[in-house]
Amino acid sequence: MSDITKINPRLLQGFRDFLPQKKMQRDWLIEKVRKVYESFGFQPLETPVLEYADILTGKYGEEANTMMYQFEDHGQRKVAMRYDLTVPFSRVIAQYPDLTKPFKRYQVAPVWRADSPQAGRYREFYQFDADVAGSSSMLADAEIVCLICTVMRELGIANFMARINNRKVLNGLLEYADVDPENTTRVFQAVDKIEKIGPDEVKKELLSEKTTIKIIGKDEYGNITEEVPLPSINQKSVEKILKFLAVKGSNEEVLKKLNTLFTNIPIGQEGVRELEEVLSYLDAMGIDKSKVKIDLSIARGLDYYTGTVFETTLLDLPGFGSVFSGGRFDELIGVFTGQNVPAVGASVGVDRLFSAMEQLELLPETSNTSQVLVTIFQENTADSLKAARKLRDNGFSVEVYLGEKPGLKPQLRYANKRAIPITVITYPDQTEKDIYIVKKMADGSQIESDLAGLTETVEKSL
Amino acid sequence: MSDITKINPRLLQGFRDFLPQKKMQRDWLIEKVRKVYESFGFQPLETPVLEYADILTGKYGEEANTMMYQFEDHGQRKVAMRYDLTVPFSRVIAQYPDLTKPFKRYQVAPVWRADSPQAGRYREFYQFDADVAGSSSMLADAEIVCLICTVMRELGIANFMARINNRKVLNGLLEYADVDPENTTRVFQAVDKIEKIGPDEVKKELLSEKTTIKIIGKDEYGNITEEVPLPSINQKSVEKILKFLAVKGSNEEVLKKLNTLFTNIPIGQEGVRELEEVLSYLDAMGIDKSKVKIDLSIARGLDYYTGTVFETTLLDLPGFGSVFSGGRFDELIGVFTGQNVPAVGASVGVDRLFSAMEQLELLPETSNTSQVLVTIFQENTADSLKAARKLRDNGFSVEVYLGEKPGLKPQLRYANKRAIPITVITYPDQTEKDIYIVKKMADGSQIESDLAGLTETVEKSL
Repeated sequence: MSDITKINPRLLQGFRDFLPQKKMQRDWLIEKVRKVYESFGFQPLETPVLEYADILTGKYGEEANTMMYQFEDHGQRKVAMRYDLTVPFSRVIAQYPDLTKPFKRYQVAPVWRADSPQAGRYREFYQFDADVAGSSSMLADAEIVCLICTVMRELGIANFMARINNRKVLNGLLEYADVDPENTTRVFQAVDKIEKIGPDEVKKELLSEKTTIKIIGKDEYGNITEEVPLPSINQKSVEKILKFLAVKGSNEEVLKKLNTLFTNIPIGQEGVRELEEVLSYLDAMGIDKSKVKIDLSIARGLDYYTGTVFETTLLDLPGFGSVFSGGRFDELIGVFTGQNVPAVGASVGVDRLFSAMEQLELLPETSNTSQVLVTIFQENTADSLKAARKLRDNGFSVEVYLGEKPGLKPQLRYANKRAIPITVITYPDQTEKDIYIVKKMADGSQIESDLAGLTETVEKSL
Repeated sequence: MSDITKINPRLLQGFRDFLPQKKMQRDWLIEKVRKVYESFGFQPLETPVLEYADILTGKYGEEANTMMYQFEDHGQRKVAMRYDLTVPFSRVIAQYPDLTKPFKRYQVAPVWRADSPQAGRYREFYQFDADVAGSSSMLADAEIVCLICTVMRELGIANFMARINNRKVLNGLLEYADVDPENTTRVFQAVDKIEKIGPDEVKKELLSEKTTIKIIGKDEYGNITEEVPLPSINQKSVEKILKFLAVKGSNEEVLKKLNTLFTNIPIGQEGVRELEEVLSYLDAMGIDKSKVKIDLSIARGLDYYTGTVFETTLLDLPGFGSVFSGGRFDELIGVFTGQNVPAVGASVGVDRLFSAMEQLELLPETSNTSQVLVTIFQENTADSLKAARKLRDNGFSVEVYLGEKPGLKPQLRYANKRAIPITVITYPDQTEKDIYIVKKMADGSQIESDLAGLTETVEKSL
């Protein structure tokens, strides 16, 4: 390693190391979710971190294009790092048309977004998705919401709310409020914010002059864009949007009021029917009615949703945001094939859910992977190694002390620091005597055992 | 999703999707290795995919600098994608000095190298490393080799050979053969190839005129390099190198011959002593002597090794290359801290090991994650959902049919295609009757059951 000067060991902002304690807790969380997903018949899939940039760009909305990690590879190909798991999933469905459908897969993997770092936001974070492709049945949408509720139950989170809406209902709103299609994203974004900023601010935002970035062509460097003004939204439209957002009550009441609002708006009526159907299936699935609520302000930021959309919030952590969200995306796969394949899915924000569970003290104390430390002394190393092997072969996690400080003390200190519950100590004259001391670190108690009885003695002491 | 034209769904060359069947087999393999690592007390660690480029560059040798994925991020920082797991591990040890040592960690993760794609070589592939930092004891080196042998046993691979060498022995060779230090890498590379190309070709290569890329300074774009000729190696040196490589026999014989060769070469003697010590520990650990062989041609391509080096080859697949390799790197962590921390570790080449096991037919048929398909008919969806829930709550993996083709046939076809062993069929007049048909797909046999007895009936049919 010539020509190297000392390099400051450091991380990029927004990126993290997970040291063993935290990594074990994360693995525990992921394992819990995986078990639920598998119990519903979802199967694992893995896609690469790097994709051709054109596979990923243009699917998520304006913001994403600025936050995606993109570069030219060694062959001058434009490549991008995975931005979510839904678009690669859609690529897979399009690329392998022979997959048996409905195709149900899960994937847990990091994704990358060059977001401005702030509390709880990372540039590398994990998503854990479950999706169904090849079914337009509302049963699939209900199953995804049922999945969420089951995950929450398995994680011991009792106090949550799955908030559900439908893009067709929101499209009904656009028609009802006579909004220019160019303002769709803008209105959805404003709707999404109502809980945070209140109706007055939403009103202000809708009435202000706004611009958007429009793609007007392509050259060798990619898209050519231009900033253009958006059509303004008139007072009457804004009033109607706010009237829509004021629709509240039980799920039955909201559906009824929406039906009145959408008397002459078929797309809105279709959305209402879909919501109704999902709710009735959830009921049959035995999901507690109080856990699923229609919330007309749920729009989801991503462009690709077409029907059901939902978010899941934790009632003990208001303002924490959604930990589990998703929806139906019936037109995304068609971007690749030219032929639409209906699909619906959800994504756990692993990092956010993990933080939430940390705050709610729902994470288990992680178990140390080692159960036994076998001491090492120069005189009888072979006896120690024999004992370690025997215990390992009988299913225990066993370390031999690999440090080099002489004597017993540093070895016991290591066991304590690592929270290893049992130490097996060899005698200096071990080889003649065949006696091992089995020491319980919690109370310091000791039992002697020969090699033949060692497994049983350790078993009892654990 | 405006402004989108149809995009060809495709992968970058050297990158792969893992569809469920293969992904489940890979997960099985990884789980097997993880269990062995944990049984030795290694704990999980995770590091980011992206690092500051200067953390990674210059540690691996010349070739790596051309194969590393590097780019500028949104903040004009030079970043690089993980190239292996050893350098990030070393960064972690340097960055968190309070970690209890010896520190034993495992990490399984993809790494990226822009290698020229060829059979069995990928640009994104998985490594699964186990490393110990903070111990210069040869016991740690022996434990790592023991780990390899244990993994092989657990995977059912009986016919393998761990081939072990020591960089100090190779440094002894350089002194013995009077090789200019500038030719170190070149000689090690030639030594490494002897099995593949034979002594005559090695001789030719050593005697030919060679150049190397030398870093002569830095500017704002990074290193300034220059191609310079390497000193030539004389005939006498080459003869001595070949004489060294001709040292063969049992481990005891090789050690004895080396001791004679290195009479006046302390570094070589130290290497021999280390090899001797590792072998004696392996013996005490109960490792079959025939599985570990000194092989003086093992040099390992990476710059950072300082002592023990090893590779593991499969005797039933000659020419397949090493599936499990590593060594001691006592000076790598010091690059970050200025203070060396001794370390040793090994890495499973997951992709190569997986291919090998595929060829040797050692991979299990993956079990489908779903055990039961519950049929869905419009008339009695609620009964189906109730049955599915009951079975799921009793620990089964259960799917309800989410397809939309009407009738029973498409549902049975789906179960067959997905290899789901049991189908639970509802009667059209289910709601009054409370009778479910439990159908075993393998032989078509059917048993009737009411909801109360369903769990037991399914259990028996599986």
